[in-house]
Order: sequence, then C-alpha cells, then structure tokens
Amino acid sequence: MLLPAPVFLEISSHQLEAAETLLQVGRFVVIFIAARAIAEVMVRLQLPTILGELVAGVLIGVSGFHLIVPPGAQVQLSAALSGVVASLTDITPQAVRHIYDETFPSLQTVSQLGLFALLFLTGLESELDELVAVGVQAGTVAVTGVVLPSALGTAGLYYLFHVPLIPAVFAGAAMTATSIGITASVFGELKWLKRSEGQIVIGAAVLDDILGIVILAVVVAVVGGGAFSVGPMLKLCLSAVAFVAVALFLSRTAAPLFDWVVDRLKAPGDVAVASFVVLTVCCFVAQAIGLEAALGAFAAGLILSASKHTHDIDAAVKPLVALFATVFFVLIGTGMDLSVLNPFDAANREGLIVAAFLLIVAIVGKIAAGWSYWSKEPTNRLVVGLGMMPRGEVGLIFLGLGRQAGILTPALEAAILLMVIGTTFLAPILLRLVIPAEPVVAEAAT
Amino acid sequence: MLLPAPVFLEISSHQLEAAETLLQVGRFVVIFIAARAIAEVMVRLQLPTILGELVAGVLIGVSGFHLIVPPGAQVQLSAALSGVVASLTDITPQAVRHIYDETFPSLQTVSQLGLFALLFLTGLESELDELVAVGVQAGTVAVTGVVLPSALGTAGLYYLFHVPLIPAVFAGAAMTATSIGITASVFGELKWLKRSEGQIVIGAAVLDDILGIVILAVVVAVVGGGAFSVGPMLKLCLSAVAFVAVALFLSRTAAPLFDWVVDRLKAPGDVAVASFVVLTVCCFVAQAIGLEAALGAFAAGLILSASKHTHDIDAAVKPLVALFATVFFVLIGTGMDLSVLNPFDAANREGLIVAAFLLIVAIVGKIAAGWSYWSKEPTNRLVVGLGMMPRGEVGLIFLGLGRQAGILTPALEAAILLMVIGTTFLAPILLRLVIPAEPVVAEAAT
Repeated sequence: MLLPAPVFLEISSHQLEAAETLLQVGRFVVIFIAARAIAEVMVRLQLPTILGELVAGVLIGVSGFHLIVPPGAQVQLSAALSGVVASLTDITPQAVRHIYDETFPSLQTVSQLGLFALLFLTGLESELDELVAVGVQAGTVAVTGVVLPSALGTAGLYYLFHVPLIPAVFAGAAMTATSIGITASVFGELKWLKRSEGQIVIGAAVLDDILGIVILAVVVAVVGGGAFSVGPMLKLCLSAVAFVAVALFLSRTAAPLFDWVVDRLKAPGDVAVASFVVLTVCCFVAQAIGLEAALGAFAAGLILSASKHTHDIDAAVKPLVALFATVFFVLIGTGMDLSVLNPFDAANREGLIVAAFLLIVAIVGKIAAGWSYWSKEPTNRLVVGLGMMPRGEVGLIFLGLGRQAGILTPALEAAILLMVIGTTFLAPILLRLVIPAEPVVAEAAT
Repeated sequence: MLLPAPVFLEISSHQLEAAETLLQVGRFVVIFIAARAIAEVMVRLQLPTILGELVAGVLIGVSGFHLIVPPGAQVQLSAALSGVVASLTDITPQAVRHIYDETFPSLQTVSQLGLFALLFLTGLESELDELVAVGVQAGTVAVTGVVLPSALGTAGLYYLFHVPLIPAVFAGAAMTATSIGITASVFGELKWLKRSEGQIVIGAAVLDDILGIVILAVVVAVVGGGAFSVGPMLKLCLSAVAFVAVALFLSRTAAPLFDWVVDRLKAPGDVAVASFVVLTVCCFVAQAIGLEAALGAFAAGLILSASKHTHDIDAAVKPLVALFATVFFVLIGTGMDLSVLNPFDAANREGLIVAAFLLIVAIVGKIAAGWSYWSKEPTNRLVVGLGMMPRGEVGLIFLGLGRQAGILTPALEAAILLMVIGTTFLAPILLRLVIPAEPVVAEAAT
C-alpha cells in the first residue's frame, strides 16, 4: 500500500508496515475495550448491550476522543494517538494520519463481515414454525407496525418539515424496524416469552425483520440510484419478495442438500466453511440481482435454519458476531456528530424538533400496532405494542446504510439516531413498569 | 473509496459499492470453494488439509486461473471474472480491475486476522506441562532440529549457490519450523501420540514453535531494516526472548487475573471479546517494541493457555481459524509463480537445483535431530526425526512474511515453497511406511 505521496518518500516499507499494523491492531484494542466496558455497564442497568456499543462508538469517535475517525470526517485524528504511533515508528504524525485513512477501509470490511454474520444469525434463529402458530395476529401487528410509523414519519417529514422526498422515505423506512434480539431478551428476562403476548411479539418481530430487510433493500437500491421512480422500485420490490420467497422455499429443500454435503465433508471446520460458502454465495446473488448483499446474508440464514446442523452453525457464527458485529455498531457510533443536537445552538433547533417528532411517531406507531390484532382471549395490548418498540440493531443498520449512501443530512441522521436510541432505551424501561415484577428470583434467558 | 482517477468519472457511488461488494464477496466464494474442495481430497488421501489450501491457492492464483491476483503481480485478473462483474454493475472491465486492486488490502487484513488467530490457537493449545515432562530430550531435539537445517541451509546457499546473506539467512530460518498441528494429527492418527516418541516430538514441536517464532521475529525485523548488523539483531533477539519469557511468566500470573475479569463480565460474547482484547494488546505491544505482531498473537495464546476458560476460548477461536487462516494459506498459494520451476526453461535450472538442495537439507537436518537426544530406554529415533519434518503452516508463515518484506527472489521463494510442500507431504507418507499398521480399526484422533 506504498503510495507515491511526498509524505512517504522517506518511509521504509518496514516502517510503513509497522505503522499499518499498529494502527489496525490499535483500532481493535480501542474499539473492544470501549465497547466491552460500556456494555458491562448496560448489562448491569439491565439494558441491551448494543446500546453500550453505540455509546462506546460515540465516546471514541467524531463526537468524543477522536480515536476512531472515518476518513472524510470534519475532525482530525487524536493527536495523542497519531503521536504515539509516530514516535514508535519514527515517522511524522502527518504520515501516520495518512496511513490511518488508507487502512480504514479494512476496518469497514471487518464491520461489513460483522453485519453479514449478524443478519445470517438472525435468519438462522428465525423460527418459521412459531410464526405460523401465532399466524394472523403476528402478521397484523407486524404490518401495522411497519405501515403506521413509516407512513406517519415520511408524511410528517415531507409535509410538516419540508424534508426532500428521498430522505423522508428513508427516515420513514428506518422507523419500520423491530429488534428481535432486544425484544426476545427483554421478554425472556421478564418471563413473558411463553405467554401469548410474547409469542405474538416474537412472531411479529420475525416477520418485521423480513419486511424490514426487504424495505431496506428496496429503499437503498432506489435511493442509491438517485432517482425515485415507480418502475425500478416495483421491480426491486418484486425481486426482493421473490428472493425471500425462494429462500423460504429453499429452507425446506436446500437445507437437506446442505446437510447431505456437510455429512460427507471430512476436513476440519467443515460446518463453518460450508455455511460461509452459502452465506457468501447468497450475498453475491443478492448483490448481482441489484439488492443489498445484507439481504443475501439474512436469506442464507433462513435457508440454513432448517438444517440439522443449526446448532453447530450457530456455535461457529456467534464468535464472529460477538467480535465483528461489535465493530459494526461501534463504527456507527463513531461517525455520529452529536453536536447537531446541542440545543444552545440556534441552528440546531429544527433538527431537535425533527428528532422529537420522529421519536413520538416511532413510539406511537408501534404501540398502536398492539391494538391492531383480533384475539378471542384477553391479552395485554400495551405489552405487545411496547415489545415492538425497540429499533435496535435493525434501525442502526438502516442508519449506517443511509450514511454510506450519503442521502441524510447530519441533522436528520442525528434525529434518526436519537429515535433509535430513544426507542431502544425506553422499551425495556417501560415494559418493566407495565409488567409486575415476578416474586421468584430473576433468571437471565438470553 | 472513490478515486479521482479518470476511469471512475462515470461511475455512481451505487455502482462502485456494488462492484466492491461483488468483488469482495466473490473472492471469498472462490477462495472457500477451491480450498474446501481440495482439502476434502487431501483428507481422503490422509494428507494434511493445509496442503489442500495451498494447492487451491496455486490453482486460483497467479499460476492458475488468475481469479485471485495480488496487486503488483505480473499477470492480469481473469477476463471472465472482471467481465462478469463489469456486466452486472454496468461499468468497464478496466474499472473493475482497478476496484479489484483497491479493495485487495481488505482481503489481506482478513488473512492477517486468520494468521493471528492461528498463532493464538497454537499458543493456547501449547501444553507447557507436557514439555516439562519430556524435558531435556525434547529440548535437545528441538534445538538440534533448529540449528542443523538453518546452519546447513544458510551456509549452503551462501557458499555453494552465492545467494546474498540476507535471503540465505531467511531461507535457513524458514527451515527451522516444525508444524505442531500436522505432527500432532499424524501421530494421533497412527496412535503413537502417547508413546515416548510421540511425547518427545510434541514437546520438541512446542519448543520449536516458540524458537521458530522468536527466530521469525528477529529475522524479519533485521531483514526489514535492510541491514544485517549484530547490535540491533542482538537487541531484538533479547527482547524476543524476554517477550516470550514474560508471556510464560504471565501465563502463571495473568491467567488467573483474566479468569477473575471474565467471571465478572456479564454481557454476551464475554470470553471471545476478552480474549480478542488480550490478543490485540499483545500484538500491539510486540509490534511497538519492534517485534512481529504475530509473536504477540502466539504470546497471547500462551498467556491464556493457563486460563480455566481455555475450552471456551478454543471454541470461539476455532471458527475464526477455520475461516480466516484458510484465507491466509490460500493467499500464499495464489502469489506463487510456479513457472520458475519449469525444468524445460534453462533459466530455471539453478532454482531447481536450489530447491532440491533445500529439500534434502530440510529432511536430513530434522531426521538427524532424532539421534541427538540421550535416552535410557530404546526409542525409534527415525520416527522422532520424521515427526519433526513437516514444516507446514509455520514454514508458510515464514514464506509469506518473506514475500511481504520483498527479500526473496522468485526462484528462492519457489524453492522454499517446494521445501515446505515436500517435507509436509513426505512426513505422513514416510511415517506410515516406518510405523507398522495397527491391527485394530483406525480411529481419527484429531
């Protein structure tokens, strides 16, 4: 990666390699120590760890100590960090900053691997049978919870705040998500997972994941093209639905084939490698037909969810998620410029009003979904609505892709972040207020 | 990663991202399918899978189908591959090749992660107690097996073949390695692991790993500086030994501290993340004091080998090794230009003679080590010597780092590769000839 830039003229390849390694390894050290420290605080506050990773990113990133600074950001890399690496390798801090930017794409690749692994795992753990059992109720909740917030959000942004159509649609789409991970863990901790409310919420969250990722694929593809015409959108929407349908079909037919192949593999690491091949092939196909590669990762998980090796695949993927999805969430936090939320700056007022609007729509839209289904027996509809509320990692994935595509203003970006953080923080707290405490000793369900 | 190069003027960021994703994901597909297919053949031939990964790399790389071509290689990316991506993203094949080269460092980062994970695992699985039990015998075998091949190899290259001193020293160092993974699996398969020969070989291989990585760190650091002076070499040698000694010391004292911390961690993925922090910190420290980061990864494994969580760490690291170390070995194969070994080209004759010389020295040097120790009871010294013979992944790591540092000529590089392949292929075959077949049904030990 030796560049002909003038700063590199006096640097030997050994110095360059040392600086590259120090920066790459050092970034991991910073990311993991920060993420882990704050995640531990979150767990003790009985809040989802993902919030810790996000807060850690904010702390070490553009709005914090400038240790992880994506290239192109308006702030400069921490002088302390570039100074340490410069003195260890005996090159100038200017050259260190240059090498830092040059090697940053590798970190983004690792974060992308983490995103793929996370979506793969989400697909893998999707219980299609559970969804079928709560059937129509979960479907109604999911669709209402997708349509209400996105329609209200997009219309409000477009008509009330005069946000251009494409960012308004994108922000609306970001409000459709439900974090199945957070929802499942909160219901598990409160021991409501096996009640009918829990079953409906989990079923709706699974369906919402599929809907959300289809919406994500369509919106990102359309928005990435820069135009917003019905023809390509319809085509993409159809191919997204067809893609998921094929994946669902394949989970019945291709999984036995996968099992047959894996049973015949003898080299070590067979399950991990075979799953990774399915994962990457699905990502490639999704990207090749114009969808997001992320949808391919989710589809790969769905396909393999019917495999008899699910347990082994799960065990192989979990460390990847623990390590690299952390990088993904921390990186989202690092890029956030929270200064746009400073209420003492008059220029920020409108952004803050937008954030408040999005947060309210996000909460109201999902809670309303709790009253949308028909049920013979009485159920606690507020619990269902609150259970659908946390946007969590799915909302952040939307946000990260929106940032990558460069279609969000900093104010709207920060408003979406606030909406995601707000719903994800509030849902566990509100659920604990609504659900009476169990008299027995609490037991973590993961 | 949008460059201001003319080829990019007409490419939208959406097309660029699609091409980047297709190339990055596509490379993984090619690497894993090729590596897995040939590894399966190797397993059925009862040969180490690592050879399959290497052969796979050769097949898809510079000497084969040109699907994985490191930037700077003399051959052009397969027209079929660039054509497919070009037609899918609607950009020119020339731009695709440019994006291919631009995104290649990310693949190298993943391969580097694989190397670190592999060396971490090697350190983690090192049984220090086993080494102590076979004590002096293993030590004598290890030292003889390091000194003989490297001294004979370096002297022969320098005096007989007039290779310059630095590449000669490097080639000699590459001959010191013993692949503990290959040795352990071969002895396990042949059920000689618990005999005294097996114990001595494993003990010596563990020690050899430590010696080899110290030598690796010293040689690469000295050679990377371009000069070969005694002062810095001595300093590096001392800091390498001190580093390993501190790591051994810490494995007794720091491991309980690590366990104490991990027991208090509550967020999910705790063991994986905590181990990764230790791994990256050790890599950073090793690189910061002028050694190879790879030595840090091995030391991190040694430190944690005394942890009571070794089993969990092992389970978390193994999928990483299965996936990313495969990338490392395949990438080594892809960069190999085997045309220099074509005996019909007169210019290659000398390189082939060098290869034959290295292979003979590599075999003789390690077999002789089998006669170097003193033992009260009769042992099969030929088995011990043959057990020390396979260079495997450690030899390839030397080779990969030598290529990175740019100090090997293509002919010498190919000769070292032939030596590594030859010893790794021959050891299991010769051991099977020397050790009589068990009358019982064979059972894989792994």
